[in-house]
Amino acid sequence: MGSTFGQLFRATTFGESHGGAVGVVVDGCPPRVPISLEEIQRDLDRRRPGQSKVTTPRDEPDRAEILSGVFEGRTLGSPIAILVRNTDARSEAYADFKDTYRPSHADYTYEAKYGIRNWQGGGRASARETIGRVAAAAIARKLLAEAAGVEVLAWVGRVHRIEAQVDPARVALAEVESNIVRCPDAAAAEAMIARIDEARRAGDSLGGVVECVCRNVPPGLGEPVFDKLEADLARALMSLPASKGFEIGSGFAGTFLTGIEHNDPFTIADGRVRTTANRSGGVQGGISNGENIVLRVAFKPTATIRQAQQTVNRAGEEVTLEAKGRHDPCVLPRAVPMVEAMALLVLADHFLRQRAQCG
Amino acid sequence: MGSTFGQLFRATTFGESHGGAVGVVVDGCPPRVPISLEEIQRDLDRRRPGQSKVTTPRDEPDRAEILSGVFEGRTLGSPIAILVRNTDARSEAYADFKDTYRPSHADYTYEAKYGIRNWQGGGRASARETIGRVAAAAIARKLLAEAAGVEVLAWVGRVHRIEAQVDPARVALAEVESNIVRCPDAAAAEAMIARIDEARRAGDSLGGVVECVCRNVPPGLGEPVFDKLEADLARALMSLPASKGFEIGSGFAGTFLTGIEHNDPFTIADGRVRTTANRSGGVQGGISNGENIVLRVAFKPTATIRQAQQTVNRAGEEVTLEAKGRHDPCVLPRAVPMVEAMALLVLADHFLRQRAQCG
Amino acid sequence: MGSTFGQLFRATTFGESHGGAVGVVVDGCPPRVPISLEEIQRDLDRRRPGQSKVTTPRDEPDRAEILSGVFEGRTLGSPIAILVRNTDARSEAYADFKDTYRPSHADYTYEAKYGIRNWQGGGRASARETIGRVAAAAIARKLLAEAAGVEVLAWVGRVHRIEAQVDPARVALAEVESNIVRCPDAAAAEAMIARIDEARRAGDSLGGVVECVCRNVPPGLGEPVFDKLEADLARALMSLPASKGFEIGSGFAGTFLTGIEHNDPFTIADGRVRTTANRSGGVQGGISNGENIVLRVAFKPTATIRQAQQTVNRAGEEVTLEAKGRHDPCVLPRAVPMVEAMALLVLADHFLRQRAQCG
Amino acid sequence: MGSTFGQLFRATTFGESHGGAVGVVVDGCPPRVPISLEEIQRDLDRRRPGQSKVTTPRDEPDRAEILSGVFEGRTLGSPIAILVRNTDARSEAYADFKDTYRPSHADYTYEAKYGIRNWQGGGRASARETIGRVAAAAIARKLLAEAAGVEVLAWVGRVHRIEAQVDPARVALAEVESNIVRCPDAAAAEAMIARIDEARRAGDSLGGVVECVCRNVPPGLGEPVFDKLEADLARALMSLPASKGFEIGSGFAGTFLTGIEHNDPFTIADGRVRTTANRSGGVQGGISNGENIVLRVAFKPTATIRQAQQTVNRAGEEVTLEAKGRHDPCVLPRAVPMVEAMALLVLADHFLRQRAQCG
Repeated sequence: MGSTFGQLFRATTFGESHGGAVGVVVDGCPPRVPISLEEIQRDLDRRRPGQSKVTTPRDEPDRAEILSGVFEGRTLGSPIAILVRNTDARSEAYADFKDTYRPSHADYTYEAKYGIRNWQGGGRASARETIGRVAAAAIARKLLAEAAGVEVLAWVGRVHRIEAQVDPARVALAEVESNIVRCPDAAAAEAMIARIDEARRAGDSLGGVVECVCRNVPPGLGEPVFDKLEADLARALMSLPASKGFEIGSGFAGTFLTGIEHNDPFTIADGRVRTTANRSGGVQGGISNGENIVLRVAFKPTATIRQAQQTVNRAGEEVTLEAKGRHDPCVLPRAVPMVEAMALLVLADHFLRQRAQCG
Repeated sequence: MGSTFGQLFRATTFGESHGGAVGVVVDGCPPRVPISLEEIQRDLDRRRPGQSKVTTPRDEPDRAEILSGVFEGRTLGSPIAILVRNTDARSEAYADFKDTYRPSHADYTYEAKYGIRNWQGGGRASARETIGRVAAAAIARKLLAEAAGVEVLAWVGRVHRIEAQVDPARVALAEVESNIVRCPDAAAAEAMIARIDEARRAGDSLGGVVECVCRNVPPGLGEPVFDKLEADLARALMSLPASKGFEIGSGFAGTFLTGIEHNDPFTIADGRVRTTANRSGGVQGGISNGENIVLRVAFKPTATIRQAQQTVNRAGEEVTLEAKGRHDPCVLPRAVPMVEAMALLVLADHFLRQRAQCG
Repeated sequence: MGSTFGQLFRATTFGESHGGAVGVVVDGCPPRVPISLEEIQRDLDRRRPGQSKVTTPRDEPDRAEILSGVFEGRTLGSPIAILVRNTDARSEAYADFKDTYRPSHADYTYEAKYGIRNWQGGGRASARETIGRVAAAAIARKLLAEAAGVEVLAWVGRVHRIEAQVDPARVALAEVESNIVRCPDAAAAEAMIARIDEARRAGDSLGGVVECVCRNVPPGLGEPVFDKLEADLARALMSLPASKGFEIGSGFAGTFLTGIEHNDPFTIADGRVRTTANRSGGVQGGISNGENIVLRVAFKPTATIRQAQQTVNRAGEEVTLEAKGRHDPCVLPRAVPMVEAMALLVLADHFLRQRAQCG
Repeated sequence: MGSTFGQLFRATTFGESHGGAVGVVVDGCPPRVPISLEEIQRDLDRRRPGQSKVTTPRDEPDRAEILSGVFEGRTLGSPIAILVRNTDARSEAYADFKDTYRPSHADYTYEAKYGIRNWQGGGRASARETIGRVAAAAIARKLLAEAAGVEVLAWVGRVHRIEAQVDPARVALAEVESNIVRCPDAAAAEAMIARIDEARRAGDSLGGVVECVCRNVPPGLGEPVFDKLEADLARALMSLPASKGFEIGSGFAGTFLTGIEHNDPFTIADGRVRTTANRSGGVQGGISNGENIVLRVAFKPTATIRQAQQTVNRAGEEVTLEAKGRHDPCVLPRAVPMVEAMALLVLADHFLRQRAQCG
C-alpha cells in the first residue's frame, strides 16, 4: 500500500530495484497537455545513476517507454503508464545481504513488516523507485507550465558543512546544471565536489540540504486544515529516501525571531497583494499567497558505506558486515530532480483541487 | 476540502472559530475500545485557551459532547461524532479585520482562494479547529494503548533561544504537566515563562520547538514509498497552525555527520533487534523499527501581536493595522497536546493499515 | 468505516437512531453557494417519519441545525456540519431485540462484524442515518441548480404489483408531492395507498420501485472505467436501506432487445448532438451524454412486520419473535427524497471532478 | 481519473485498446500470497477474444508479464504490475470512426468530456481494459481462497429470451467451462449458441444476464452505510462495459412479495446462524451474513452491429454509418470472467477492510 501519491493528479509507482521493471501510472492528468518522451527522458537523465564521479558508478540508461495515455503528442485524459526496464541489476552483489540487515537501511523493517523481502537489492526502498516519480512529475511540470507558468527548481544548498549562497528568486536551471554537484554557487560547488570525492575515497558518505523554489504559483492553492500546502509538501519531500527534515520559509531559523521581527507585512506591488519579506515561504494558513514557495530538505549521509559495521542477521546473531559494492557517496546531486518531482506532484494535485472546488 | 485525516482511522473536523460549534467525526475506529467523555475532556483541557498566564486570556470551557458511536462506554465501530459549542466568541473584536488582511495570517489567502471569508474570527485557520483533532486523538490514544501499549508524549523543547535538556526515553507526562509552559526541564521552564511574560508585556510573541516521543511502537508500521511513517508524521505536524519545520531522528543536525558517524548499528538486546544509537529516530525506510520515534516541530512566533503593522485592505489600499485583542504570546504550551494528537492520529491509522495488509 | 460518500463533494454521516443525534459533515462544497436552513429542512420534511398514514407513526420533527460552513447565507468552502437531535427514541421498545436477531434486519450481521451493537434501535442501519444524506444533498441540489440548471426528481413507480405510468421527461415535483405515496400517476397512487393500507392492517409490508430522472445534466460527467456515472449511481442507490436492485436506461428489459432494436441513433436537434431513443439512459461509456438520466431502484418489502417469526438469539437458540412497535408498511414514499439525495450526491461529485480534470 | 478500484486492495488499470499495452498495478495485496503467472494467464485466457465462434474473431494471445511485486512465487506486499502488449491492433479498421460517432458507443461522450480521443479503437471504453481487472482479480482469488476458502463463480444465466436453470449453491466451474457460451445448463447452452450464431449471421447482437455466486464468504464483510457490500458490488459490476442493471438476492422480483413472504427467518444449522431462504442474497444491512452471495448483471446487446445506422459526425452533420469489422455478437460468454473479477476485487478489498477495523 502507499504507492499512490495525489488525490486528483495521481501517480502510482511500481517496481523493485531488481525486478523486471520500474514505472508509474499517472491517472487524472487533464487531457490535451502536450508531452513528449524526450521531456520525460530529460528529467530521468538528471536522476539516473552513473552520470558523474559524484554519483554511483552503477550505469543504467533508464530509457522510458510510454505505454498509454498519450496520443499524437498530447495527453488523452486517461492513465499514462511509463515503463523503465531494469538492466544493470547485479543481484549477486546483494547475496551477502540475503540474511544480514544493513545498518540504517530498510532490510530489517521490511522483514519485520512483510515477513518476506526481495533481498536482490533495495526493493521498494531503492532510489530506483523514484524513477516513476520523476517521470510522473515531468508531466506535472508541463501541465503547470502550460496552465499557469509555474516553475519549480531545486539545487544543492549544502553538503556536509559547505553551504552555498543562492538567491531563490533568481537562480536558473542552467546554473544548477553547470556542475556535477548541482549547486549554482560555483565556489561552493567546487568545494562540495572535492569533499564528496574525499568521502568516496574514504569509503564514507555525506549528507546535506537540497533547496527548492516554486515560482509563479497562483494564490489559492492548498487547503485550510490537514491538506495545507506546506503539509503536503512536507509529506512529499519526507517520502524521499534518506530525508530526515523539512522546512518552509523561515523554518527552524524563524523560531529565533520574535513575532514583531518575523511577521510578513503586506504591500501592493505590481498591481497585486505582495508580502515584503516572504518569511512565510509563499504559504499562509496552508494556502499559497502568490510569493515564491521556498523549502529545504535535509538528506542524511548515504547509509551504504565501504566500512565494516556491526549488525545482526535473520538468525538473531550479531555479525560484522563487510560492506562493498557501488554506491552514491552523496545522494544530493541526484536528489535534486527528485525534490523538484515531489514539489511538482504536490502543486499539480492542488492546482486541480483548487479548480474543482473554486472553479 | 482537506478536512479529513487518515485512510482507515479517519478524523473529519468541522467548525469555524466563531460559528456555532467545532467538532470532529471519527470513522473507522475499531469496535469495543473503552472510551469515556472524561478521557476526551482531559486532552481538550490541556489544549483550551485561558488555562494560564502564558496562554490567551480568551476563556472557553470547551466542553465536549459525544453525539454518536459510543455505547455503554465502548466504541461501536460506527462514526464517533464529538461536538464543542463556541461560547466566548466576541466577533465584534474582529470587526476591524473584516476588510483588512492581518499580516502572516490566512485572511488574504482565504479571500484569494474562496472569494468569501468568515471575518468574525480566524475561520478554519483558527487554533479552535484543533479541538476536533485533539478529541479524535484521545480515542486514538486509547486504541493504541489498549492494542499495543503505545505512549505518545510531547513537550516544549525550546522557546526562542531557551533550550531544554530532556531525555525522550525517560520523560514522563507528570514532568511535562508540572509547569504551565509544559517543559519538563524545570530550570528551562522557569526561564521560558519569564521570557514569554516579557514578550506578552511588550505586545510581542515567541516561537520555538516542540519535541515528541512515541514509545512502544511495534515494528512494521508505515509504508515503503509515499506513505512512509515519517512522511505522514511530517504532513500531520506541518498541518498544525504556525508550524514551519519538521525533523525526525537526527534531522537537520544529522547532515553534519558523515555516514560512518551517522549509521545506526544493529544489535540484539532484550531478545530482539535493536539499534545502538537511534539516529534513525525509530523509522527506517519509512517503517517503524521498534525504537522510540523522536520528532521535532518548529512553530513560528504567533502572528497576532499588539503592534501597529503595515498591511493592505480588500480595496487594495495600503493601511496600518492597529492590532488589539487577546492572543497567545507563545503557542507552544498549547501546541503540546496538538502535536501529540497528530502523532497519535498517524500511528492509529498506520496501526490499522498494517493490520489490514499484514494481518 | 464507509461513512463518507464522494471524492470531492464529500458527505460524512454520523449517528445511530437512538444515540444523541444524527447528522452530516459536507466537505468540498464550493464557496459562495447560496443555501438556507429552510432549503435543507424542506427535503428533511419529505423524508421524516410520521408525515402520513402510509408512513411509520413514529413522530420526529427532525429539525436541522447548521453548525458550520455557512456565513451570511452562503457556503464558505469549509465543512458544513448539520445536526438533527434524536427525540422520539423509545428505546424500551427495542428491549426485546437486545438478544434476538430480527429476521432480514442487520442485527445479526452487526453482531458478527463488531461484536457489539447498540440494540436500542437499528443503529447505523436505521433509516434515520439517511437524514444526513438528505441534508447534504439539499446543498448539492443548490450547487447543481446554480451551476448547471440540473434537476433531480424521483417518484414511486411501482408498489407491489401496482405500476404507475409516468413520463420522466415531463413529470414535475408538484405532481409527485400531490399525494402521500409520492406517485404522480393519480389513479395508481390511489390504488397504492389502498394497497399499503391493507398491508398495514394485516401487519404485513410491501416493496416496489422508485424511479428517478436527472435532467439538464451536462455532457461529460463520469469517468471511463471504475467510476462510470452509472456505476457510482448504482453504488449510491444500492447503499440505501432495503434496496435490492438497480437499473439505468433500458435496464434488465433492454436485454430482451437485439442490438439493432436497442442501439440509440444520434441526431442533431436543438443545435446539439442528441439521441433519438435514450435507451442508454443518459450515459454512454460511463459518461453523461446530455440526455435525461433515468434510473430505477428496487426496494424490498419492509423487514419489520407485525407477525410472529422464527429466529435465533445471541445464545444460539431458536426462538419466536413476537414483533410489535411502529414501522413503515411501505418504505417507498419516504425513499423518494433519499433516492434524489443519492443521485444528487453522485452528480455533485462528478460535476466537481469534471471541473478538476477537464477545466 | 477513476482508474483505481478498491481502498485497500487497490487495482489501477491502464491502457487503450490500440496503444502500446494494457495492464494493471495492484497495490495493497498482502505479502506471501502464492501466485504464479499461470494462474493469472488462466483467467486472461477465459477473457480473451478469439476463443470461440460466439466471440469476436479478433485474435490476441493476451500474454501477461509480471513486472514487479512477486518474488520466488510469492507476493512481496509491494505493487504488482502486470503488462499485456497490444498486438492485433488493426487501427485502420477504425479510420471510419475518426470523425463519426458510433451509436451506443462512448465516442461522442469521450469527445464531449476530453476534447480529444484515441479514435484508433475504443480507447478506455474497449473491453481490452478489463484485462487489467481480470489479472488483478486472479491475485484476489488466490488471496481469498488461501485466507478464507472463498469461491467466486459466474455463468451465463440468460441470453436474449433463453433462460438457464442453475443452482447457485451447487454449480461448478467445470460445468460453466463445459461449453463455449459458459452456461452450465447444457440444453439452454445449446439454444443460446444457436441463437447467438443466428444473430451473428444477421449482423445483429444479443444481450442477457450473467449470474454470479460467492461461496464461503465469512460473515462481517461490508460496511453499514455507503460502502455496503451490495453497494460496492453494484458499483463494481455496473462499471463493466455494457452493463445496464444489477440485482442481489431477491432483486427486482422480490418486490412482488410481501414482507411476510419475503423475510428470511434465522435458524441454527451446522452449528452456526443460517437463514432458511437467503432472499437477502448473503448480505443484510450491507454486511455479509455467511450465506451465498448471489447477484445478477444485465448486459445490453453489443453496440457494434453490422448494419447501416443513423448517426452524426464531429462536424455536426447527420450521416449514415456503414458498420463493419469484427465484433462479439454477444458479450456474455466473455463477460463471465469479468463479472467474477469484479466480485473478487470487492471481496478482497472488504476482507482487508474488515481485518483492519475488526481485527
